[in-house]
Amino acid sequence: MTLVLTSLSLCGQSLRSLKTSSKPLVLKAQGSFYVGGIADNQTFEQLGSFGPAGRISVNQMYVHYMVPKKTKGLPVVMIHGMTLTGKTWETTPDGRMGWEEYFVRKGYPVYVPDQVGRGRSGFNQAIFNDAKAGKTEANKLPPMWRFSDEASIPNFRIGTTEGKPNPDGKFPFDALNELSKQAVPDVSMGLPNPNPTYKALADLSAELGKTILMSHSQSGAYPIEAAYIKPDAVAAMIFVEPGRCPNGLKPEQLSVLSKIPTLIVFGDYLTQPTGVPHSWQTAYESCQKYTEEVKAAGGKAKMLYLPNSGIKGNSHMLMQDTNNQQIADLIIKWIQTI
Amino acid sequence: MTLVLTSLSLCGQSLRSLKTSSKPLVLKAQGSFYVGGIADNQTFEQLGSFGPAGRISVNQMYVHYMVPKKTKGLPVVMIHGMTLTGKTWETTPDGRMGWEEYFVRKGYPVYVPDQVGRGRSGFNQAIFNDAKAGKTEANKLPPMWRFSDEASIPNFRIGTTEGKPNPDGKFPFDALNELSKQAVPDVSMGLPNPNPTYKALADLSAELGKTILMSHSQSGAYPIEAAYIKPDAVAAMIFVEPGRCPNGLKPEQLSVLSKIPTLIVFGDYLTQPTGVPHSWQTAYESCQKYTEEVKAAGGKAKMLYLPNSGIKGNSHMLMQDTNNQQIADLIIKWIQTI
Repeated sequence: MTLVLTSLSLCGQSLRSLKTSSKPLVLKAQGSFYVGGIADNQTFEQLGSFGPAGRISVNQMYVHYMVPKKTKGLPVVMIHGMTLTGKTWETTPDGRMGWEEYFVRKGYPVYVPDQVGRGRSGFNQAIFNDAKAGKTEANKLPPMWRFSDEASIPNFRIGTTEGKPNPDGKFPFDALNELSKQAVPDVSMGLPNPNPTYKALADLSAELGKTILMSHSQSGAYPIEAAYIKPDAVAAMIFVEPGRCPNGLKPEQLSVLSKIPTLIVFGDYLTQPTGVPHSWQTAYESCQKYTEEVKAAGGKAKMLYLPNSGIKGNSHMLMQDTNNQQIADLIIKWIQTI
Repeated sequence: MTLVLTSLSLCGQSLRSLKTSSKPLVLKAQGSFYVGGIADNQTFEQLGSFGPAGRISVNQMYVHYMVPKKTKGLPVVMIHGMTLTGKTWETTPDGRMGWEEYFVRKGYPVYVPDQVGRGRSGFNQAIFNDAKAGKTEANKLPPMWRFSDEASIPNFRIGTTEGKPNPDGKFPFDALNELSKQAVPDVSMGLPNPNPTYKALADLSAELGKTILMSHSQSGAYPIEAAYIKPDAVAAMIFVEPGRCPNGLKPEQLSVLSKIPTLIVFGDYLTQPTGVPHSWQTAYESCQKYTEEVKAAGGKAKMLYLPNSGIKGNSHMLMQDTNNQQIADLIIKWIQTI
């Protein structure tokens, strides 16, 4: 496998590449907090053999938020995908405004979590320290997933399996290194089942009254799981490039999902080889079928396949593509119809 | 060991506890970026056996920033301590404004990193996946440190080794669970030597022209390490409750450090038992000696021991204590003298 990007520098993004809007951002409030979490009593070894045994918090979910001075719509919760964190929605790899700030500037309070088990949410480290101490077998450790650039270029549909950019692709390919840096180890396989993020999202929405849950990739179906827990707290769902959509929904599931307007957004190059055991065309088809099932049950579900709207060249990371504001505007237009 | 807090709920902070300022926050810019990072070629197993072998980024440093509309001073970089992330400086555990926003409101651009190896900076997971695959011995894994509440209550001088709050203590003890949730596994022992955070801080400062580096606890001496790398980029250093200060400085070190005005801040209860192998009184004494060495070399270094200014009851987490704005004001007053 040959990569064209090996000569690029990893020395650090020039801060001069950060673009600043000419209009100030006026916030009513901003900050962060945690949702969920349980107490776990751990041994001296499980805590890394530094301080005394005792109680720590695990499975909590970090949330960063910004509320505009003038609110024009419901809060939007933006949930990132596999091996990533809430950084997905912040400044783009090439220094442009991300969707977090863009939606705030359009009047929406925005809440950006790190999934439980990643980033500032942390993860339960006990089993790793137990393995170090010989208290558990190393082959029982959950995997820590990372995508190599060789995986993410084709799988995120930024380029080909040969590492070349897609002709007319909208992802800022020269800033690929900055996307690489956004990745952290993903210990999802070490989480309790069901994933505590589902309930944390439901609780967050309920605390805020009602929210619009926007997911991406791995988190595609998380809004559905949150809606099953607290149906009245989810005003709408937006799946951005979901990894898959559930099909063959049961009547009790459809009775929840048909009451929640849903938008599904896909970019370009769906049939391109991904280099990993995943097909975006299959994902797209499962989501097309999802919209049909929900609509047959009387619900409102829309597929926004961008090439059908004449918008070509978008990658899987379309919130970071060069036309990210154009896509955000289409989503906001849909939100205004619900 | 008896803890008085076991009956407290870990169900999640009520969003209603978040206090909102009556004055909007007006920003010229905000967002995030990464500094540093190197390319690392890893095997299929090292990447968690999901996608193809190849190149990932490791040792990068995530930075969140906010720039006020009207800037009145140099950028301030706020670096968190052990087992924590940049969350340290955001909203306090009981929902009040943290120092990040407070300093921005006072006219300072603020940059908040996650140390390399933690939070949104991620860490190099290869050795853990290698252990899982039987490619390395589990006893070679770096420890993942966490503090139990039983450790952090006395060591952060929030309360006693029996888990009781200090009488007249300024830490919001009822919100202790929210501090617990801020902790993530600390894999510092798995980092290259020297810690890549040092150079990332130096590079960040140089990119910004000159900065004021503010550290806390574990990161106490990080500004010094950054100053050795890029002396001209560090305008001032503020050590908030540093874990220790270096002593016996060499002439070439003093020639750097005597040119950088330095403030060191300590709270109350320094002689209280910590329950871990660390003494805050010893830390304080090493820092007092540091100020004397720097001053003897013609430099400007000040110890701000809060009880000597009549400010009692402060914990190790004084940026989260109920009088955090009073302490911030003292620091800003000092900044205005440099």
